[in-house]
Amino acid sequence: MARPNNSLRMKEFQNCLSGNRLDAYVVSGTLELGFLTGFHLDGCMMLAGRKRVWVFLPEMLLEHFKSEVNFCEAVSSGNLAVSVIKKAAGEGFKKVGFDPDNETFRRGTLWKKHGFVEKPGLISSMREVKKGREIEFLKKSCRIAAKAIKIMAGRIRPGKTERSVSLELEDLMQEMGAKKSSFDIIVASGSNSALPHHVTSGRVIRKNEPVLVDFGCVYEFYHSDCTRTFFMGRPDGEFRRVYSIVEKSQKAGIAKVKSGVKARDVDKACRDVIAGKGYGRYFIHGTGHGVGLEIHESPRLSVKSKAVLRAGMTVTVEPGIYLPGKFGVRIEDSVLVRGDVAQRLTV
Amino acid sequence: MARPNNSLRMKEFQNCLSGNRLDAYVVSGTLELGFLTGFHLDGCMMLAGRKRVWVFLPEMLLEHFKSEVNFCEAVSSGNLAVSVIKKAAGEGFKKVGFDPDNETFRRGTLWKKHGFVEKPGLISSMREVKKGREIEFLKKSCRIAAKAIKIMAGRIRPGKTERSVSLELEDLMQEMGAKKSSFDIIVASGSNSALPHHVTSGRVIRKNEPVLVDFGCVYEFYHSDCTRTFFMGRPDGEFRRVYSIVEKSQKAGIAKVKSGVKARDVDKACRDVIAGKGYGRYFIHGTGHGVGLEIHESPRLSVKSKAVLRAGMTVTVEPGIYLPGKFGVRIEDSVLVRGDVAQRLTV
Repeated sequence: MARPNNSLRMKEFQNCLSGNRLDAYVVSGTLELGFLTGFHLDGCMMLAGRKRVWVFLPEMLLEHFKSEVNFCEAVSSGNLAVSVIKKAAGEGFKKVGFDPDNETFRRGTLWKKHGFVEKPGLISSMREVKKGREIEFLKKSCRIAAKAIKIMAGRIRPGKTERSVSLELEDLMQEMGAKKSSFDIIVASGSNSALPHHVTSGRVIRKNEPVLVDFGCVYEFYHSDCTRTFFMGRPDGEFRRVYSIVEKSQKAGIAKVKSGVKARDVDKACRDVIAGKGYGRYFIHGTGHGVGLEIHESPRLSVKSKAVLRAGMTVTVEPGIYLPGKFGVRIEDSVLVRGDVAQRLTV
Repeated sequence: MARPNNSLRMKEFQNCLSGNRLDAYVVSGTLELGFLTGFHLDGCMMLAGRKRVWVFLPEMLLEHFKSEVNFCEAVSSGNLAVSVIKKAAGEGFKKVGFDPDNETFRRGTLWKKHGFVEKPGLISSMREVKKGREIEFLKKSCRIAAKAIKIMAGRIRPGKTERSVSLELEDLMQEMGAKKSSFDIIVASGSNSALPHHVTSGRVIRKNEPVLVDFGCVYEFYHSDCTRTFFMGRPDGEFRRVYSIVEKSQKAGIAKVKSGVKARDVDKACRDVIAGKGYGRYFIHGTGHGVGLEIHESPRLSVKSKAVLRAGMTVTVEPGIYLPGKFGVRIEDSVLVRGDVAQRLTV
């Protein structure tokens, strides 16, 4: 099982507790627990103090957890929330934080009743910036996706169904070591390509139409995200024009990506190119999003985003133009933010 | 896209609002929205009144949604929660419910601030009992899984890795029409089989050891769940004894399943057989769970469960014995609860 810097990440988190004047923090999300411990299973709960960390879990996971993680105290429990509350009281913790965006209303209400305090974003903010093995895993995940689509490009042809292309692509990625697709692969042919969230169907791909493929894979729990738009045959003038605008837009966006830049400025760079050519109203989604343990995570790259890019973030840049009933073009890469320049990972 | 009885389900839900003296209910979970509308995409929010239903969603999903769902009013919105609050006020709704187990603490706090009331379990209770096309989809999902493992049984052999077995099984299910695996397939060989949640590894399967395979697939959004335990070669006395106990235990559990029976009595039926043979402490998990749009959903079949089985529920029955460091055996089927007798679906 993958443990990207986990004891380091846990230390970093404990330092962050001190910085926020918290005695402890309760963590119950599977992703957050996986991020901090390397143990990716649900049904566990953590109480992280500044010096000691307890993980409460069902009896049946106890030995498994202990064999994977040696920097937490594993405690078998039949009622995780009650165990957390008792431990916090027993340790005399005065200020225990929880994430209001990661707890249900019912659970959060229980925490509040016991005096815990809302402290959003501590872990999601750590998760935004990838480190060490996380970056290796992301690079590998992206490389597999990019290699697979290059091979697949030669195999997409009229007569195949969208679904068969999707299955073949997934197989290729798994043969190359991916665990699975990072989401349900979108293969959108013909006018389906004008729907950004088309659901891959049994439609047969025809001559003289586009095929948009939005896909990625999971490698050691890390996701890649990539989109390519192909054309079956010789594209007409309109398709070539639209494709070339999206290509320029994406290039402009990636050129903007570096540490310190506002996420919304990357969005603007993409949007300006498309709007400048008169297609502004056909670019109907944000420019990108963070990618890591989740396929969509913070930061968002959109008009409204308040995020500032930092070195180590991995984000997508994916402008598109969608002409309803006709066709759509989207080009997407996952890129690593660095101090100087963005590194395209899906190549 | 699949629409199992969706306009009927929506009507049923609207009737349930009246029964609970609610003017409306806010729904923001992807699964719940998918269940009620047949539109399975996140980033949407619904305000369901007794007579009219509004779905708020980003501009880019508007046309797509409209083309799929004709019994809701689709409204493009840049801020879903604000749109819901405004609409509820504009319609003069006095009592708007929300599910405290399905909203984050932050969102639930916002709803409360606007006078919405906690009303848990309305939709999850509806989801427990499957109807019409849902049952067809579940049957198909289970049949694919069962067929695939029968073929796979002849292909699992010493020399293959756990991972290669997992990939081959997934391919088989996809060839048969499944969309994907219903969860990360567990292939646990040798002493790995003693870990109920082993993560499929590159370990090479050897002669004279067990291979436990826990798997299932998704068909039209509906999940199947099944476990088989094989032995590579001629099993020794201990394995045969344990296997036969688990087999009897599962048979006793399934024999107990019918409408009106307490879920914990099914658990007891399984547990009694295993405990009666002296292996009680090695059956370290609950007996089963509901299966449908999620791989694990209510009801739970466990010692503590308060659920009563109803016709139309689909649940797993999956007792196991795990001897640490040695081996484990689990046998699991997905079964449909009926008035008279349970119907095994994974056959």
